[in-house]
Amino acid sequence: MPYYIGDVIKDEQKLIVRTPEEFRKSGIDVMLRTGVDGVDPAKGTVSLSTGQALPYDVLVIATGAETVWPGIPGQDLEGVFPLKNLTDGLRLKSFLETARCKKAVIIGGGFIAMEMSEAFRSRGMDVKVMDILPAPAARWGGELGLFILEELRNNSVEFLPETRPLSIEAGSQCRLRVKTSKGDLDADVVLVAIGVRGKVGLAESIGVKKGETGAVQVNFSQKTSHDNIYAVGECCEVFNRVSRRWIYAPLGDVANKQGRIAGQNIGGTPGVFPGVVGSQSFKLFGLEVATTGLTEAEAIKSGFAPVSEFIWGLPMARQLSRGEKLGLKMTADRSTGRLLGAQCVADEGAVKRIDTLAVALWNEMVIQEVGYLDLAYSPFYGGAWDPIHIAAQNIARKL
Amino acid sequence: MPYYIGDVIKDEQKLIVRTPEEFRKSGIDVMLRTGVDGVDPAKGTVSLSTGQALPYDVLVIATGAETVWPGIPGQDLEGVFPLKNLTDGLRLKSFLETARCKKAVIIGGGFIAMEMSEAFRSRGMDVKVMDILPAPAARWGGELGLFILEELRNNSVEFLPETRPLSIEAGSQCRLRVKTSKGDLDADVVLVAIGVRGKVGLAESIGVKKGETGAVQVNFSQKTSHDNIYAVGECCEVFNRVSRRWIYAPLGDVANKQGRIAGQNIGGTPGVFPGVVGSQSFKLFGLEVATTGLTEAEAIKSGFAPVSEFIWGLPMARQLSRGEKLGLKMTADRSTGRLLGAQCVADEGAVKRIDTLAVALWNEMVIQEVGYLDLAYSPFYGGAWDPIHIAAQNIARKL
Repeated sequence: MPYYIGDVIKDEQKLIVRTPEEFRKSGIDVMLRTGVDGVDPAKGTVSLSTGQALPYDVLVIATGAETVWPGIPGQDLEGVFPLKNLTDGLRLKSFLETARCKKAVIIGGGFIAMEMSEAFRSRGMDVKVMDILPAPAARWGGELGLFILEELRNNSVEFLPETRPLSIEAGSQCRLRVKTSKGDLDADVVLVAIGVRGKVGLAESIGVKKGETGAVQVNFSQKTSHDNIYAVGECCEVFNRVSRRWIYAPLGDVANKQGRIAGQNIGGTPGVFPGVVGSQSFKLFGLEVATTGLTEAEAIKSGFAPVSEFIWGLPMARQLSRGEKLGLKMTADRSTGRLLGAQCVADEGAVKRIDTLAVALWNEMVIQEVGYLDLAYSPFYGGAWDPIHIAAQNIARKL
Repeated sequence: MPYYIGDVIKDEQKLIVRTPEEFRKSGIDVMLRTGVDGVDPAKGTVSLSTGQALPYDVLVIATGAETVWPGIPGQDLEGVFPLKNLTDGLRLKSFLETARCKKAVIIGGGFIAMEMSEAFRSRGMDVKVMDILPAPAARWGGELGLFILEELRNNSVEFLPETRPLSIEAGSQCRLRVKTSKGDLDADVVLVAIGVRGKVGLAESIGVKKGETGAVQVNFSQKTSHDNIYAVGECCEVFNRVSRRWIYAPLGDVANKQGRIAGQNIGGTPGVFPGVVGSQSFKLFGLEVATTGLTEAEAIKSGFAPVSEFIWGLPMARQLSRGEKLGLKMTADRSTGRLLGAQCVADEGAVKRIDTLAVALWNEMVIQEVGYLDLAYSPFYGGAWDPIHIAAQNIARKL
């Protein structure tokens, strides 16, 4: 009988689609509110917090990720929240309601910070986002970074660039006061969103090998350095098809895919996880923000000689537009012409372009062919020359 | 000096972005309202309707397509319109206004008929669409055809299946009466939209070779059977990368690409047109309708052994949906697992999925990898498992 041991969803059993009883009918024993004290790989047993020892033939480590904390005094005060899992989200939501929060400070300016700035604003709260970098959502730099910044400003979110949190204290006007390298900020609630790292303690304790990123090393069938131990999701690495490195990319869709591949292999049907190209998107008020592959800086780090092109285009044909904007940056390798990555921010149609280019990246297409891709043209969804074609052809002319 | 000889845009010079004078400054002589009586390839001259004979080193045939008429009595009556070019559109629009048309009958049920049914309805007109086939927009069959039919019905467009026009006569109540195999229809205006064919008369007259489709045969640099004669756009064929046949695909984006490739080659920079995969889309009231690659029937005709899967999915994650629908049909080859085509109809996100799959087709991806493509996941734009993944994995399980 397969066992599932979990604690993440323990607080909100009502949100579980199937109850443990229903799982049991399918032959799966789901043990909620159950911790794991240790694993004995020699004996093939898992020691539970209940004292019980469960035998296993195959073990899957899916311990997920944990919040990275800034490591500053006061980060454990009431009103300071991480947002890693459903439980965190529910706790935060209930705190916002009961404590009647009006001022939010977000430490970190990545995509979780961006999404949460919108969530706080939708409750009418005052929102300040601080980051040690000069712009939010750093993977979208230059013109696209300014476009994002403008959207934050238009929606009354204040972004504090190059700002380091120093400590969090009890406040006078508000519950909390965040001391930063650029002055003090009042806050009813503070969200810590500077990133996550793989939760690898259990894996480490039994000698499962970690990769260079610090997350658990796996092979293409999601197997770890131990023959009967698999790892999936945000505790392990994933192969990037563009940089040809094993990277740490803690994203929900990737975790889902790895889980299915591990399950398939354990079940006796071989399957390999083909890796990722680095696709990602989020919504920010009225904008779609999306990326795939390497940024120009990442391309240089990977040893490519990138040539980039930034264009402003339109999500639809010119005669149908009402002032919508679409900014697209595309990067290719000078020596091979190979597409390396793209970032897009638009009032609409950014994710569509990035998904299209993600498949081009997956297949190692050269920029010359990207410039002539056969897309499903209709004036409502693009021009006869799509921004993808225009940016690619502009790059091709530079090679 | 390059010459451009044209008549298509003669009625609406105000719509030309650049005037002939402006073109002349760029060294291009644009001769509007000028017909071509003949070409003498031995001498290398074009005889104009003005009596003049123009010499050429290189000739580009871009004569476009012409309307296919049903060949029935009365098709030349006033109030019966084709819709092939801008001039047709302007004439039709002015007729609708001056003749105060209230009832439209559309002969043909393809994508032009679908788009025009919406245009007529937006003017408050009564619209009937007839086709000899059992459903409109035949490339989207089965469930997707019913979805399209439902959208027509919800917008008060009547579709008459398996109906053949017999003749058009002067009417009593209305200007016109269309006699069909299923009874008579009153109409103030009749639109003929049963298709187009390449306008190849000029090419034929000088012995330029035609392909099996009846359109002008070209090679990958858009050159015809004559060494110094090129052809581009809706008068010539295009290579389909999936069926590996030269097909006739009169679409604006394809014409644009062919024109650029021909120009590049004539200008001395070699370039090849890599062909199409058969992508196409249109808007129908609230629906996005899109397709790429081969339909199941076309796949059989091309010698593949297709396996298909139809699913209903969502354009976004379930928790954000408000009843939107997305229907996706995907087809792969049983022996190789190669993706062969897809059709998608949705309240939103159909073109996005089809563009993504168009690139997968372009690269001859197998369905197993399509099932694990790295798309830019965010709940607003798809689930962690996108309909693309689900349909592809369902097919993979059938292989």
